[in-house]
Amino acid sequence: MRALSRQLVALLGRGVVPTGQPIATADDVGLVRGDGCFDAMRVLGGGAHAVVENLDDHLQRFEQSARTLGLAFDSGAWRSLIAEAVAAWPDLPEAVLKLVLTRGPELNPGVPTGFLTITELNLDAMRRARAGITVRLLNRGYASDAFADAPWLLGGVKLLSYAVNAAAKRVAEAHGDTDALFVSSDGYALEGPTSAVIVRQGDRLLTTPTGDTGILDSVTGRQIFARAAGEGLDTAHELIPVSTLFESDGVWLASSIRGVCPVTRLDGQQLRVDHDWNARLAAWGGF
Amino acid sequence: MRALSRQLVALLGRGVVPTGQPIATADDVGLVRGDGCFDAMRVLGGGAHAVVENLDDHLQRFEQSARTLGLAFDSGAWRSLIAEAVAAWPDLPEAVLKLVLTRGPELNPGVPTGFLTITELNLDAMRRARAGITVRLLNRGYASDAFADAPWLLGGVKLLSYAVNAAAKRVAEAHGDTDALFVSSDGYALEGPTSAVIVRQGDRLLTTPTGDTGILDSVTGRQIFARAAGEGLDTAHELIPVSTLFESDGVWLASSIRGVCPVTRLDGQQLRVDHDWNARLAAWGGF
Repeated sequence: MRALSRQLVALLGRGVVPTGQPIATADDVGLVRGDGCFDAMRVLGGGAHAVVENLDDHLQRFEQSARTLGLAFDSGAWRSLIAEAVAAWPDLPEAVLKLVLTRGPELNPGVPTGFLTITELNLDAMRRARAGITVRLLNRGYASDAFADAPWLLGGVKLLSYAVNAAAKRVAEAHGDTDALFVSSDGYALEGPTSAVIVRQGDRLLTTPTGDTGILDSVTGRQIFARAAGEGLDTAHELIPVSTLFESDGVWLASSIRGVCPVTRLDGQQLRVDHDWNARLAAWGGF
Repeated sequence: MRALSRQLVALLGRGVVPTGQPIATADDVGLVRGDGCFDAMRVLGGGAHAVVENLDDHLQRFEQSARTLGLAFDSGAWRSLIAEAVAAWPDLPEAVLKLVLTRGPELNPGVPTGFLTITELNLDAMRRARAGITVRLLNRGYASDAFADAPWLLGGVKLLSYAVNAAAKRVAEAHGDTDALFVSSDGYALEGPTSAVIVRQGDRLLTTPTGDTGILDSVTGRQIFARAAGEGLDTAHELIPVSTLFESDGVWLASSIRGVCPVTRLDGQQLRVDHDWNARLAAWGGF
């Protein structure tokens, strides 16, 4: 992977700082325990004309993650910091805005660390993925109801503790695939390491329910479902057996950054791909 | 919890740096994805007379964690950094040495971030815990064989992605208990968030096997078992049903920092506590 070329960094309570300057101390539990949360969305353009896509939805999910972790959250401070950062960002076609909140330094308890980055996206890689990806099924080790009555498992929180997601992606790539799709130990499709799964059966769209499954509530998935329902399609949140993926009329992995990517091959097996439906889902997702 | 009072920080490839100085950039995937590993051990005393407990064992486990994550590891560089740091550390009764290695900055791929901290231990809290702890059972959501053939789940790796462990501890404390003990979805004792479980049945000691369970290989647990076996006791690594905990002659949570802590109450139920056995296990564990 080539190094991404441009990045802006800003600290909550302080503003834009030089890129590449260290910002977290050695005792920050975000760093040493992955104890914190994040959220990510696209920035289109920069300066006065920049658009932060679905900012309200992402900020709301970010706040929900923070509150589940018991971290104080100041929505107004985040909005101000985002506005300052985006105004200082150059006019590039696509970038990713990442918001990060950690429980803060262990030696200074009760003072969370908040920061954001805006990073230029590799457009070639994005375009390739939006045209089609190949995916490997990986067992997540959890049953589809593992998160029921287990708040300590932090289901639905976009955690900084993301090492398994990163490892799953590396394993998929080692198999020659683009990405992974997690499967529950009882055989249902869950989510990708950084995406939601959407399945088409005729005029019906399916996705995995949040809640007991522990998966993240996808902003892009929610938007696609709202617009599809608005056009009269049947949409449902229900557990999707792996066999259903192979028998479906289309499978997509949807995320706010990479977009709505049609899965062309799953575990080495070709899937049905319909270009009209790809275009519809991409448009509904804002891509 | 009171703030810990003294800390030393040193960077791999650079040496000791001022405490409290930020050391990780905003794009370090150790910070934003918990993508890295750590290990921790006690330092007794400081300067020329300091003893780093079980350094070889911890360094070996740390290297194993790094290699499982595909991170380059230079054992000699770590030993030099540890020697330099310990020499600069004041002569205090007990401190914790933590070694951290992350996959490094996303914008500068292939350059891991390595650092260590030495932090003064709160001796009062340690002494209280070594005298006895109360523990809450929490379902970890994984079956006892969930990590078989699933290397992407990173079983046995002391990951920076530790948010669930931290959350479990908070939930236990909210119940008025000292700590948690994770249970598999099929009803076996796994490990504490930062400790191994040891159970006594007469002259027999049991602990949970590593491997398919995904639990960490405990340096202290291994040492206790080696010394117990040397004194003729029967020791076994086998799956421990939760009911066995309640019917046993003693349960301990063992870790390199907090020591070998007898569990006096489990899920609100008193357990058998034998002071002679507590003393034996503590001595075998080096406490």
